[in-house]
Amino acid sequence: MADEVKLYRTWSSPFGLRIVWALHIKGIEYDTIFEDLSNKSPELLQYNPVHKKIPILVHKGKPICESLVILEYIDETWKEVPLLPQDPYQKAMARFWAKFGEDKLLPSVWSVFSGKGVEEKKEALVPAVQNLQHLEEQLKDNKFFGGEKIGYLDIEFGWLPYLLDVFEEVIDLKLFDAAKFPLLSAWMKNFNNHPAIKPHYPPRDKLVTKFQLLHEKYQTGN
Amino acid sequence: MADEVKLYRTWSSPFGLRIVWALHIKGIEYDTIFEDLSNKSPELLQYNPVHKKIPILVHKGKPICESLVILEYIDETWKEVPLLPQDPYQKAMARFWAKFGEDKLLPSVWSVFSGKGVEEKKEALVPAVQNLQHLEEQLKDNKFFGGEKIGYLDIEFGWLPYLLDVFEEVIDLKLFDAAKFPLLSAWMKNFNNHPAIKPHYPPRDKLVTKFQLLHEKYQTGN
Repeated sequence: MADEVKLYRTWSSPFGLRIVWALHIKGIEYDTIFEDLSNKSPELLQYNPVHKKIPILVHKGKPICESLVILEYIDETWKEVPLLPQDPYQKAMARFWAKFGEDKLLPSVWSVFSGKGVEEKKEALVPAVQNLQHLEEQLKDNKFFGGEKIGYLDIEFGWLPYLLDVFEEVIDLKLFDAAKFPLLSAWMKNFNNHPAIKPHYPPRDKLVTKFQLLHEKYQTGN
Repeated sequence: MADEVKLYRTWSSPFGLRIVWALHIKGIEYDTIFEDLSNKSPELLQYNPVHKKIPILVHKGKPICESLVILEYIDETWKEVPLLPQDPYQKAMARFWAKFGEDKLLPSVWSVFSGKGVEEKKEALVPAVQNLQHLEEQLKDNKFFGGEKIGYLDIEFGWLPYLLDVFEEVIDLKLFDAAKFPLLSAWMKNFNNHPAIKPHYPPRDKLVTKFQLLHEKYQTGN
């Protein structure tokens, strides 16, 4: 089995972790190949010649790129423990919010992280908080975005529990007020407590160091 | 039937036309509501409060937004005449290229259109042509992107046959050299000749006028 599924990722990428989480939720055996993006392997360039990015899932020798495309592929190939809802309308809603996560939420939070100086960061915080509010409203009283079981949207938004508090430590600014987002706050705990999730986070101090270096670059413009 | 499916779109949006094409390919009856984006209807704001954009498909009273999400919903709800491949790997490839179309190809061509002056446009042409080359390579010897039958990726890339020559007329610059892209060129003809497609294009002179006005704004920065 193990030689059938290979995952190319970096040690820290939240997009790569999405695939790790999905494979573990489903109980699929796989091999990991860790890439160094400053020195990409010939396999990475061969498997993703268009974007030259990770994650890449290689299944029976055939590569699939783009994390959300990989998640749908995994869900359609290994049907046990479904990640997406089965109902076409609920599935469309999940895809809508996943796209919102990629196109709106993630860039808006990243603008806070990468903003130069406190003022620029605080300005960027306004749309980021509005976008988080949209997520808060989607949770209702559910444990996860899709209900009682972890699934596609939890994986999509998993970078929040994974990275938000790292970002906060690095930029020394409160990004996420748990009192304003009680449902999201509870969801983050549920997500982190799931056995398929947090054991795959890399060491936090290593993450903080990585983002500290990146943050310094943004602040000095180098 | 007709009151079950409603499509909110504008007269000219290529994203709205994607849904028109899909519904006609599948033979689904629907009603059209034309929106004026300078004066959005209460229904548009109610159905898409996050983005406040068209297209919106309302099916049995429930709204679905984002054109690619709508296409997948249509394909899963009305299964006759499938748009996406059935095989999970081929489906993943279709989704990968659709994402490439949205994230890379479309913005790169738009940069040529919106570039200020001939020099900026010619500079923007380099990545746009590279991206078109990727599409050319996907077509192989097929009539359509998925083979002999029109489908998801043809609809995704349908804005090319719909708008490229309009853009060229407006900006007075060759964007697409048919001799360099013989397969794409043949595909555009096949697409336009399909009975579900060109009858739904709005009048060309009206389109040219619309994009002339928009182009003037980009050139003067107003």
